[in-house]
Amino acid sequence: MKYGVVIFPSKRLQDYANSFRKRYDPHITLIPPHVTLVNPFESTEGEIKGITENLHKIAQSISPFTLDVYKVKTFHPAVNKIYLAIKKNEQLLNLHNKLNADVFSNNEKTESFVPHITIGQKLSNREHSDIVGQLTMMDVSFSELVDRFHLLYQLENNQWSTYETFHLGKES
Amino acid sequence: MKYGVVIFPSKRLQDYANSFRKRYDPHITLIPPHVTLVNPFESTEGEIKGITENLHKIAQSISPFTLDVYKVKTFHPAVNKIYLAIKKNEQLLNLHNKLNADVFSNNEKTESFVPHITIGQKLSNREHSDIVGQLTMMDVSFSELVDRFHLLYQLENNQWSTYETFHLGKES
Repeated sequence: MKYGVVIFPSKRLQDYANSFRKRYDPHITLIPPHVTLVNPFESTEGEIKGITENLHKIAQSISPFTLDVYKVKTFHPAVNKIYLAIKKNEQLLNLHNKLNADVFSNNEKTESFVPHITIGQKLSNREHSDIVGQLTMMDVSFSELVDRFHLLYQLENNQWSTYETFHLGKES
Repeated sequence: MKYGVVIFPSKRLQDYANSFRKRYDPHITLIPPHVTLVNPFESTEGEIKGITENLHKIAQSISPFTLDVYKVKTFHPAVNKIYLAIKKNEQLLNLHNKLNADVFSNNEKTESFVPHITIGQKLSNREHSDIVGQLTMMDVSFSELVDRFHLLYQLENNQWSTYETFHLGKES
């Protein structure tokens, strides 16, 4: 089964992201707006129990932190994906590193982590260039507290369902 | 903000439900297959913290139980909604009653609880009558353990996002 770890930001920020996704992101039907902390990985229902325990310990070790969205950016030319860019901060990077080190038993993905909320993808070059100028010029500013993250799993139709919630700091 | 409380059944059962929903349920894009425990209700972010604490206490008071799906049924003629019917059992009813008593401060909805997983809705009378005979004749049998439920909230586009997971029995 395929699992992933994400932050769901506030309703206000999810609504804002969806106002773009409804036009530019076909994945809107598969998952609400999110910040991916651990990319999709294969695991069994047996293995995931151990991983879940570790994720609780990691959650406990990191305090709630501020999520700052400051700009719209694009991963073009690597890929035509437009996103709400999130400022890197120590706790977010620390959380990302610990989670990935646990799930993948290494730190390989750490350096390249670009925290983001996707608002457009699967766009043709034409579509991408039509909208990217306008979107990246917008003033975007959200600042909110993150106090939890979620472990999800993917269904056969690619839709994501929730397995577990993890609370930053206060778990024991 | 609108909240709801649901069980997400196993991936296997969700995949089975989605095999029908992709054809018969336009809400497939808004939420994975689920058993509704508490119908959508309005609450504030302040109020929901207290409700969340109560839901944890309720979760703790009820042991994991078996979810048995035994048949396809329809709510027609009340409404053209087709569903996987779930056998009532004491723990499921107890959980439903306690949750609704807490959220709505009464027990009104208890008697009419029909535990189900919707697989078709918003069907015209013609569509409904075309498919209901075939679906309700199918042999359907799933039996699985439920050890958790989730508190969700609804975004402006009607999509549901997860707020919190509650574990039956073992919470403290």
